[in-house]
Amino acid sequence: MSAPDLGRRALLKGGLLGGAGAFTLAGAVASSGAASEGSAPGTSSTGTADLVVPFHGEHQAGITTPPPPHAVFVGMDLDDGVGTTELGRLMRVWTDDISRLTAGVAPVTDQEPEVAARPAGLTVTVGWGPGLFDRLGLDDRRPSWLAPLPPMPVDDLDEAYGGTDLLLQLCSHSPVPLAHARRLLVGAARGIATPRWVQPGFRDPGEQAGLAFRNEFGQVDGTVQPDVADRDADLLWIGPASASHPGWVGGSSLVLRRIRMDMEDWERADRVAREHAVGRDLATGAPLTGGEESTPVDLHAVLPSGLPVVDRHAHVRRASPHAPHERFLRRPYSYEQVGTDGTVETGLLFAAFQADPVRQFLPVQRRLAEGDLLNIWTVPVGSAVYAVLPGCAEGDWLGRALLV
Amino acid sequence: MSAPDLGRRALLKGGLLGGAGAFTLAGAVASSGAASEGSAPGTSSTGTADLVVPFHGEHQAGITTPPPPHAVFVGMDLDDGVGTTELGRLMRVWTDDISRLTAGVAPVTDQEPEVAARPAGLTVTVGWGPGLFDRLGLDDRRPSWLAPLPPMPVDDLDEAYGGTDLLLQLCSHSPVPLAHARRLLVGAARGIATPRWVQPGFRDPGEQAGLAFRNEFGQVDGTVQPDVADRDADLLWIGPASASHPGWVGGSSLVLRRIRMDMEDWERADRVAREHAVGRDLATGAPLTGGEESTPVDLHAVLPSGLPVVDRHAHVRRASPHAPHERFLRRPYSYEQVGTDGTVETGLLFAAFQADPVRQFLPVQRRLAEGDLLNIWTVPVGSAVYAVLPGCAEGDWLGRALLV
Repeated sequence: MSAPDLGRRALLKGGLLGGAGAFTLAGAVASSGAASEGSAPGTSSTGTADLVVPFHGEHQAGITTPPPPHAVFVGMDLDDGVGTTELGRLMRVWTDDISRLTAGVAPVTDQEPEVAARPAGLTVTVGWGPGLFDRLGLDDRRPSWLAPLPPMPVDDLDEAYGGTDLLLQLCSHSPVPLAHARRLLVGAARGIATPRWVQPGFRDPGEQAGLAFRNEFGQVDGTVQPDVADRDADLLWIGPASASHPGWVGGSSLVLRRIRMDMEDWERADRVAREHAVGRDLATGAPLTGGEESTPVDLHAVLPSGLPVVDRHAHVRRASPHAPHERFLRRPYSYEQVGTDGTVETGLLFAAFQADPVRQFLPVQRRLAEGDLLNIWTVPVGSAVYAVLPGCAEGDWLGRALLV
Repeated sequence: MSAPDLGRRALLKGGLLGGAGAFTLAGAVASSGAASEGSAPGTSSTGTADLVVPFHGEHQAGITTPPPPHAVFVGMDLDDGVGTTELGRLMRVWTDDISRLTAGVAPVTDQEPEVAARPAGLTVTVGWGPGLFDRLGLDDRRPSWLAPLPPMPVDDLDEAYGGTDLLLQLCSHSPVPLAHARRLLVGAARGIATPRWVQPGFRDPGEQAGLAFRNEFGQVDGTVQPDVADRDADLLWIGPASASHPGWVGGSSLVLRRIRMDMEDWERADRVAREHAVGRDLATGAPLTGGEESTPVDLHAVLPSGLPVVDRHAHVRRASPHAPHERFLRRPYSYEQVGTDGTVETGLLFAAFQADPVRQFLPVQRRLAEGDLLNIWTVPVGSAVYAVLPGCAEGDWLGRALLV
């Protein structure tokens, strides 16, 4: 085990994890050691406080990891004058901090080790945005597809939630280690990068096991997903053939869209109108053409009148792939932005991971923007695209192959 | 069972709950019926989704109920022209809605019954602020202590978080039923009252069992609490002797203080400085005079130098009661207010319940404002006081005895 810049505690923890079982794509293991220190007053753990999701591996965690109830996306821009040297320094520091925090071990600069000791399945996923390549002159290492999405007719984008040079996606079963890790990682970037936006999201803790969840419209969302653990793996991960640079193999991409939902107007729509717009039964998530949540929708089914059962503009039809490659891993969260005037903006942090967003995501997005009935009640207000770095082995650091 | 304005489903649910066991002060029972309908995709419940905290009783729920990980406080002002008739109508509607929502039953106007079916221990607690009595000319029914706290030298109050006419405190194990209930109850008040502020809070889900929790400073907070279930009950609940009106018997009061925490400056303080300021060990929460978290602090202990072990201005000393009545039930939550510019304000929603805030809370607050070392890193930015209504029996409604 060679990990020159990890301390003794981290190595011990690493060894413990290494011995606990083989790395699984979506696996999380409970580290009995992680919460043994300073856990008062949390002796009444619900069982998630000690969860550890392995950090090291071919891919970063937080992508195929089942989404826990809390997430926060942090978009950061490089400070003026920062070059590849400083970016490399930041990536080394972040790699060290993330490997510790996710293992339940306090980084050296961390003054709240008791909070760090309860990671609750913390994952941190790092991405690079288009601006980073422009700013640092790294065009030869830029993925061909890495650019903002073209403007969509439904968009009402606010640059306050636009694409940034760097992205951190943090997820956990508890908002406490999430806040702690966010502060520590943002603090570690001081002088190199500054947050432009922070977008927290949530899911129902009762829905941890799968990717599907009930969004704020009450709609079961995220049912149809590619089989990324097996036959659809090439839809998620950048492979040697498509990588613009070998340093991207094992990476992915993230499209993050902030979609505001008009809850007041949605309340005026009755169940029939809602199910017509979605194309699914709201109670069970089953398609209107019958069956259960996992039953494929029959887009050819017609009513006795000859009209389609699923409307031409129903969400489920517009979102259906026209070709096998038009699929991607969706890992969305709900959000609530509380104003200082008693108002609350409600919406969805739509997060999609795929090997190539232009080839896989964009055609679907175009169909939705053109004629999804849900557009009546939704407006995209933020949009960003990132290249997600491959994972790294112990002793290595995120992005090294792209910077040295 | 007489509950004329509850529908058949609610009666069934009520019967189910009635049969499940006697009402306990802090008890929550799992209603096996509550989540049986439309719970897809939440079949993988973590065990909290179906929790039901009984609504009816002598006192409102959400006070002695162990604080679940999510809360939201909503401060609302009565609309112009609203009188006691309209307030009475709102209280009847809210009582009906709250009794259903907390039981996992959708109110009649609720179009997301699948969300309502998973209350996750939802409680809703209703309070009346000083302005309500002024506005409606109800001075004869106003508790003598119901007024804003006097200004404190440490305060930097923002009226955006000041006292309002009405308060809703919602708590749940899941942010999803919380958001749903908030929207429904705020919607039900349309034309009668409008939110001035919405303040969400969180705790670590691993710390559900007790009142104490680790705040964003990493400090164990809320260890010393009165024994409100037994010998200190009169410190919490308004009794016949002290009630300004019989309609308040079984009620309480809430002091809600929004306390901003300067995380950046706190990061510059080392463990020694932090523990000196708090007066407790940060890892275990034990007083600096020894023992464990529950050990009483020895304020007379001195060092060999003759100086006190616990500094004259340490938080634990300033917060210690000088008389037995200077105690109150603390039920705080952490908050993070995310700005639209990449910044995050961190702090504490200090929530204290007591029979009489002027007699019990104010002397302690004065001592803290005068010389608590933690004031170096904290600023109260919001302050509000409410009279908390007594509970109600089935068929009755909150506040009836004060309005008819």
